[in-house]
Amino acid sequence: MASSSSLTLSQALLARAISSHGSAQPSDHRVSLSALSIPTFSGLKSASPRASTSCRRLPTRSTRNHQVRSAAVETIGTAAETSLVEKSVNTIRFLAIDAVEKANSGHPGLPMGCAPMGHILYDEVMRYNPKNPYWFNRDRFVLSAGHGCMLQYALLHLAGYDSVREDDLKNFRQWESRTPGHPENFETPGVEVTTGPLGQGIANAVGLALAEKHLAARFNKPDNEIIDHYTYVILGDGCQMEGIANEACSLAGHWGLGKLIAFYDDNHISIDGDTEIAFTESVDKRFEGLGWHVIWVKNGNTGYDEIRAAIKEAKAVKDKPTLIKVTTTIGYGSPNKANSYSVHGSALGAKEVDATRKNLGWPYEPFHVPEDVKGHWSRHVPQGAALEAEWNAKFSAYEKNYKEEAAELKSIITGELPAGWEKALPTYTPESPADATRNLSQQNLNALVKVLPGLLGGSADLASSNMTLLKMFGDFQKDTPEERNVRFGVREHGMGAICNGIALHSPGLIPYCATFFVFTDYMRAAIRISALSQARVIYVMTHDSIGLGEDGPTHQPIEHLASFRAMPNVLMLRPADGNETAGAYKGVEKGGYIISDNSSGNNPDVILIGTGSELEIAVKAADELRKEGKAVRVVSLVSWELFDEQSDAYKESVFPSAVTARVSIEAGSTFGWGKIVGSKGKAIGIDRFGASAPAGRIYKEFGLTPEAVIAAAKELC
Amino acid sequence: MASSSSLTLSQALLARAISSHGSAQPSDHRVSLSALSIPTFSGLKSASPRASTSCRRLPTRSTRNHQVRSAAVETIGTAAETSLVEKSVNTIRFLAIDAVEKANSGHPGLPMGCAPMGHILYDEVMRYNPKNPYWFNRDRFVLSAGHGCMLQYALLHLAGYDSVREDDLKNFRQWESRTPGHPENFETPGVEVTTGPLGQGIANAVGLALAEKHLAARFNKPDNEIIDHYTYVILGDGCQMEGIANEACSLAGHWGLGKLIAFYDDNHISIDGDTEIAFTESVDKRFEGLGWHVIWVKNGNTGYDEIRAAIKEAKAVKDKPTLIKVTTTIGYGSPNKANSYSVHGSALGAKEVDATRKNLGWPYEPFHVPEDVKGHWSRHVPQGAALEAEWNAKFSAYEKNYKEEAAELKSIITGELPAGWEKALPTYTPESPADATRNLSQQNLNALVKVLPGLLGGSADLASSNMTLLKMFGDFQKDTPEERNVRFGVREHGMGAICNGIALHSPGLIPYCATFFVFTDYMRAAIRISALSQARVIYVMTHDSIGLGEDGPTHQPIEHLASFRAMPNVLMLRPADGNETAGAYKGVEKGGYIISDNSSGNNPDVILIGTGSELEIAVKAADELRKEGKAVRVVSLVSWELFDEQSDAYKESVFPSAVTARVSIEAGSTFGWGKIVGSKGKAIGIDRFGASAPAGRIYKEFGLTPEAVIAAAKELC
Repeated sequence: MASSSSLTLSQALLARAISSHGSAQPSDHRVSLSALSIPTFSGLKSASPRASTSCRRLPTRSTRNHQVRSAAVETIGTAAETSLVEKSVNTIRFLAIDAVEKANSGHPGLPMGCAPMGHILYDEVMRYNPKNPYWFNRDRFVLSAGHGCMLQYALLHLAGYDSVREDDLKNFRQWESRTPGHPENFETPGVEVTTGPLGQGIANAVGLALAEKHLAARFNKPDNEIIDHYTYVILGDGCQMEGIANEACSLAGHWGLGKLIAFYDDNHISIDGDTEIAFTESVDKRFEGLGWHVIWVKNGNTGYDEIRAAIKEAKAVKDKPTLIKVTTTIGYGSPNKANSYSVHGSALGAKEVDATRKNLGWPYEPFHVPEDVKGHWSRHVPQGAALEAEWNAKFSAYEKNYKEEAAELKSIITGELPAGWEKALPTYTPESPADATRNLSQQNLNALVKVLPGLLGGSADLASSNMTLLKMFGDFQKDTPEERNVRFGVREHGMGAICNGIALHSPGLIPYCATFFVFTDYMRAAIRISALSQARVIYVMTHDSIGLGEDGPTHQPIEHLASFRAMPNVLMLRPADGNETAGAYKGVEKGGYIISDNSSGNNPDVILIGTGSELEIAVKAADELRKEGKAVRVVSLVSWELFDEQSDAYKESVFPSAVTARVSIEAGSTFGWGKIVGSKGKAIGIDRFGASAPAGRIYKEFGLTPEAVIAAAKELC
Repeated sequence: MASSSSLTLSQALLARAISSHGSAQPSDHRVSLSALSIPTFSGLKSASPRASTSCRRLPTRSTRNHQVRSAAVETIGTAAETSLVEKSVNTIRFLAIDAVEKANSGHPGLPMGCAPMGHILYDEVMRYNPKNPYWFNRDRFVLSAGHGCMLQYALLHLAGYDSVREDDLKNFRQWESRTPGHPENFETPGVEVTTGPLGQGIANAVGLALAEKHLAARFNKPDNEIIDHYTYVILGDGCQMEGIANEACSLAGHWGLGKLIAFYDDNHISIDGDTEIAFTESVDKRFEGLGWHVIWVKNGNTGYDEIRAAIKEAKAVKDKPTLIKVTTTIGYGSPNKANSYSVHGSALGAKEVDATRKNLGWPYEPFHVPEDVKGHWSRHVPQGAALEAEWNAKFSAYEKNYKEEAAELKSIITGELPAGWEKALPTYTPESPADATRNLSQQNLNALVKVLPGLLGGSADLASSNMTLLKMFGDFQKDTPEERNVRFGVREHGMGAICNGIALHSPGLIPYCATFFVFTDYMRAAIRISALSQARVIYVMTHDSIGLGEDGPTHQPIEHLASFRAMPNVLMLRPADGNETAGAYKGVEKGGYIISDNSSGNNPDVILIGTGSELEIAVKAADELRKEGKAVRVVSLVSWELFDEQSDAYKESVFPSAVTARVSIEAGSTFGWGKIVGSKGKAIGIDRFGASAPAGRIYKEFGLTPEAVIAAAKELC
C-alpha cells in the first residue's frame, strides 16, 4: 500500500481543524475537541518510522477581539496616596477572605500576601481595557500559583471587568459561576490561561512572552511599534519546585525574553509546612544560572516603593527576563494564621476573619469595596478604552503604510485565515511516490506555513526525527525572533505548556510541537490543559508503537493510544499507512470507514478493523480470507472521537450490529477495543511492554501478523 | 455504607503484595503487576475526600543477593600505565562502535566520548563483585543518558560480569538479548535501574543515594560501618534539560547526599545539533544554587588525572552531592563525525569505522579485547570476590554484636519479611467506626511500618491530604537521615523516580509515595518505569474524581482510571466505600465480586457495577429496583487487573454471559467499560472535564445518581 494517500487523510483533517478555527463561534460552550496527532508508522515495511501530523478541532474564542479599532496611551497614571493604596490592598485581601469564607473553600493565604504586588500591577503598571479583555496589545497577566485565584478575581473586579461582578465573587467556586476554584480562561474573560496544576502558568507565560517577541520582531516598524506589551506572572514556591518551571525558565533565559517579568511569591510556606523541609535551594542563584535578571524585594507586605522600583528595574533590562523575588507573609493580616500552612488552603473561619478585620482595621461588611477605593479604580474603564482607541489609531496608520503586514497581523489577531489558504496544500494521488508519513507531514507543514501567518512550532530536540522543520524559516532565537522554528530542547513538558501560552496569546497563532509518542508521558499535564483550556495546539507525535524497534520498551508506546482516547477534548488521529483512495477523505472525516468489502447486503462474515500501520496487516489477512471464500470487510478506524460523533445510521453501515464476528488489530493496548469488537469479537494488540529488537521481529513475536488475524477471524466465522 | 471494611480490601491486597514480594521468584519473567493505589472518595456523603492505599504485586529479583557472606577491601588498586589505560579506553570505544555497527542501530557517540570516565569508574574507583551483581554493599552506577548503554555493556563485559559476554555484545539490540537498546535492570544483571527516557536516571540515582544514606544512618555503628557505598551517575545535556532532573537534584542538594557523584557529559551536542540552539544556561551556577559541589574537568577526552582528581575531591566533600562537569567530544576519535549530532544516534558506517580505527590506531577485529587489556581487567573477579568476602565477615561481626539491627538489615537486604508481620495490621468489622479510607490507609501504613523495616515514603507536599505521615518517625532530612517520612516537596515526577531508585536499591526497601490522583499526569513517565522495571513502588493516590469538588477541572481526574488500567504491570485498586463483609476479602482478591443479589440461578434481570465511591450509588439504585420486583445483582469491580486473571468459571459466576442487561457507574471516563457492560449494556460515567462546585452538585449535574442508574437499568430489562 502506498502511504501517499494516508497523508491526505491527515491533510483533510488538518484542513477541517483550521477551517473550524477560522469560523469563530463566540459562545459555543460545548466540549470542543483538542487534537493530538498520532503518526502512522510502518513497522513491517522498514525500520524508519514515519509520522503524520493532524490537529485539534480549534477552540472557540470570543469575537470581541476580532475588531481592530484605534488608540494609545503611554502610562496608566501615577500611584495613589499610600493610605489609599493600603486601603485598596486591604480591599483585595478582604474580597478574597470573604469569598473563600462564603464558599467555605479556597485559598486565602496567597491573595492576602500578594495583594500589594497585585494592586501595583493592575492599578499602576499594567495596560489593559476592562471592557475588552481581548484587546490585542494588552499586557498579559498569569497567576501561575492558580490556587490564589481570588487575588485575580478581586483585581478584575476592581478594574471593572464585567466577568467578575460582586455576584460572581459571591458565587466563588459554585456551579456555573465565572469564578471557579482555579483560573480558567474559558470561563472568565480577563484570565489568559488555565492554571492551578503548579508550574504550568509560568511556562504559559513564557509562551505568551515568546509570542509577543516574535510578533513584535515580525511586524514592528521603526515608525510604528504596533506590538509592545509585557507578560507578568506571579508564581509561588510550589511552582518553583516543579520541573516544568525550570524547563520553561531555562528557555526564557535562552531566548532573552526581556518583557517577561515574574514575581516569585517567596513566603516560605507550602502545604506541608515551612519550605525548609523540602526546598532550601538558592532560587536566586538558579535563575541567574538560567540567564535571568534577579531582584529581591525584601518587604513584599508593605514595601510598595520597593515593588515599584523592582518593576522599573525589570523593564530597564531588555535582554533578559526578570525574576522579582518578593518576600511576603502568607495570610498577611491574620493575627493567628499568618505565616502558617493553615492559611494556605482553607477558609479562615468566622472567628479569625473577625480577628483579621480588627487587626487590619477593616470595619466593612463582607464584599464591600469602599467608595474611595472604587473611585480610584474607576479610572481604568475610561483609561482602558483610551488605550485601546489610541492603539487602534496606530493600527490604522500601520494598515495604511504596511498593507501586506497589516493583513497578516490582522489574521493573527482575529484568527480569520487568509482566503483560499487551503489551496496551498499539496495534493496526492495513488500515483504519487510512496513516502513516510512523517515526511509527508513535513511537506504539509511547509505548505501551510506559506499561507498561515500564525503557524510556528518545533520539536523537543527531535526535529529530524519528527520532521517538523519549516524549511523557509530559520530558528526563533534571541536575536532572530522573527523566525518560526522553535527549538525546545529536551523539555517536553515545558514545550507543551509554552505552546498553550502561544495558542492563547492570539486567536491566529497556531503552535505545533513534537516528540516521540511515548514521551507524551512527560508532557501529559500540559496536553490535558491544552484540551481543557481549548488551546489549539497541534501535537505531532511520531514513533507511535513497538514499530520503532531497537530502542526498546522505554521508547515504545503501548497504552498511549488508549490513554488519549480516554482524555476529553482530544481529537486523536492515527492515519493508516495505506493505499487510501480519494474517497477516503470523506470517510476519514467520519473517523472510520470501509476500505474494502466483498460482501453484499451489509452482512459480511467478518469485519477486520485496523488503525495506522496495522491496517496493512488487516488488508493482507482479508486477501487470504477472501481466497478461502469468506466475505470480509476491512475498516480503518482513524479517529475514534470523530467516528463517535457520526449518526447511528452511519455507524450501523460500517459496523452492522448483526455482525458480531469482528477482529481488530492495533500495535497498542487492547484496552477500550471491547466497545468496537463486542463481547464476541477479538481484539489483537499488545497488553505487555515492548522489547528491544528489529521491528519486524517484535511484530512477529507479539503476534501482530496476518496469520493471527486470519486465525482469529476463522474462530469467529 | 460504612467505609471501615473498604480499608480491609486494600489491606488484604497490601498483604498479598507484600507476601508475594517476600517469596522471591528468581527467574519468573512473566509480566508482573505494578500497583497503583486509587483512593475511594465519597463525593455524595461529604466534601472531604478519602483515600485508601494499595500496592503493586512485587517484582521478582534474583535470589543471588539473598545470601549474606563475608569480606572487605579498601581500594580497588592503583591505575594502570597511561598507555594501557588508553588502550582500555579505546577497547570500550570500539566495543561500542562494533556493536552499534553490527546492529546497525544504536548510539556510538556517548560511549566514545565517555569511555575515559567510564574506564576510571569501573577500573579504578568502583567497588563491586562481577560474579555477584547483587552484592549488597556494591557501589551503584546509573547511566542516566541511557542511549549510551554500549558504554555500560562494554564496562560490564570487561569487568567480568556473566550478563554481558561477547555473544551478548554481538546481539546488541536483538530479540531476547541481554543487551537491549537502553539499560534495563530486569534484563541485565549489573544494570541497577532502567533508563533511556531522559532525566529518569539521575533521579533514580538520588533515590539510590538516599537509600544508602538512610540505611547507613540506621545501621552503622562506630565500630562497624556496615553500609558504605557510593552512587555514580553519568548524565548528558538531554538529562540536564529535563525538569525531572532539576527536581531530583534540588532534593539531593537539600538532603546533602554527599555520596552521590554525578558526571555531566558536557559535549555540547544534542540530537538537533549544537546545544547553543536551546541550552545556554549556566549549569554550574544552577547546581551551585541547588546546593551541589561543582567541579569542571576541562579535558574529559584524555585528561585521566583530571578525572581522578575530581573524583577524589568529590569524595572529600561529604555534605553535598557533587556534579563533575566533564567536557568531552561526542564521538571522540571519529575523524569526520566527532563533535556532531550525526554520531549521536546512528551507526558510524563501515567507512567511518575504518577511518576511526586508523585515527585511533586500532588494528583489531571487531569485538576484540586485546590480551593486555583483558589481563588488566581480569583482577576484578578475584578482587570483587574479596570485597564481598571481607564485607561478609564484617556482617558476621555485626550480626554478633547487633543482633536485632542485623535481623532488620538482613530483611532489607534479602527482601524476606519478618515472620508474622501481617498480624500487625489492624482488623476492622462492620461495627468499627466509619472513617475516611485515607485515614484508614494511614492507620495501615503506621501499623505496617512497625513490622516492615524497609517501609518508607511520603508525599509531594500533600502529606496532610494524602494522609501518609508515619507517626512514630520524624522526617528524613540531611541531619536526620535515619527517619522515614520523606518530604518530596511539589516534585511529583522526581518523587516517582526517586522511589524507583529506593525500591531498586534493596529487595526489602518498600517505598510509597503520594499526591492527588490527577497529578499522576506529572509523574506518569516515572510510574511507567516503576511498572516496566518491576520496582515495587506503592502509589497512594487520593482525591480520585470530581468528588474533590470546588478545586475544579484542573484537579479532577477523569481519564486517569482508564489510562492506568491500560498501562501494563500496574495493579490498580479503587476500593469501594461500602459495608463490605469479612467475606469480601476473598472476593476482592479476585478483583471483582458480587456484593448483593436477590436473583436465583445466576440469572439476574440486571447487573449493576460500581467501583469506589460510586458503588454506593449502585447499591441505592438496586434497593429501589428490587422494591419494584427486579432481580438485581450488584458487583464491585475493585481491580480490573485482578479480575482479568480469574478463571472463566469465576468470571461467568459474576457476569453470566446470558445477562446482557448491565449498567456500570464510575466517576470517570467510560472508556474501556464497553468490555464489561457489553454492547447491550450502559456505562454511566464522565466523558467531559469536571467543574468547580461542591461535589454533590457536580455528581447531580453530571448524572451520577441512583436515578440515572435506575433509568438505565429499566431501559435494559
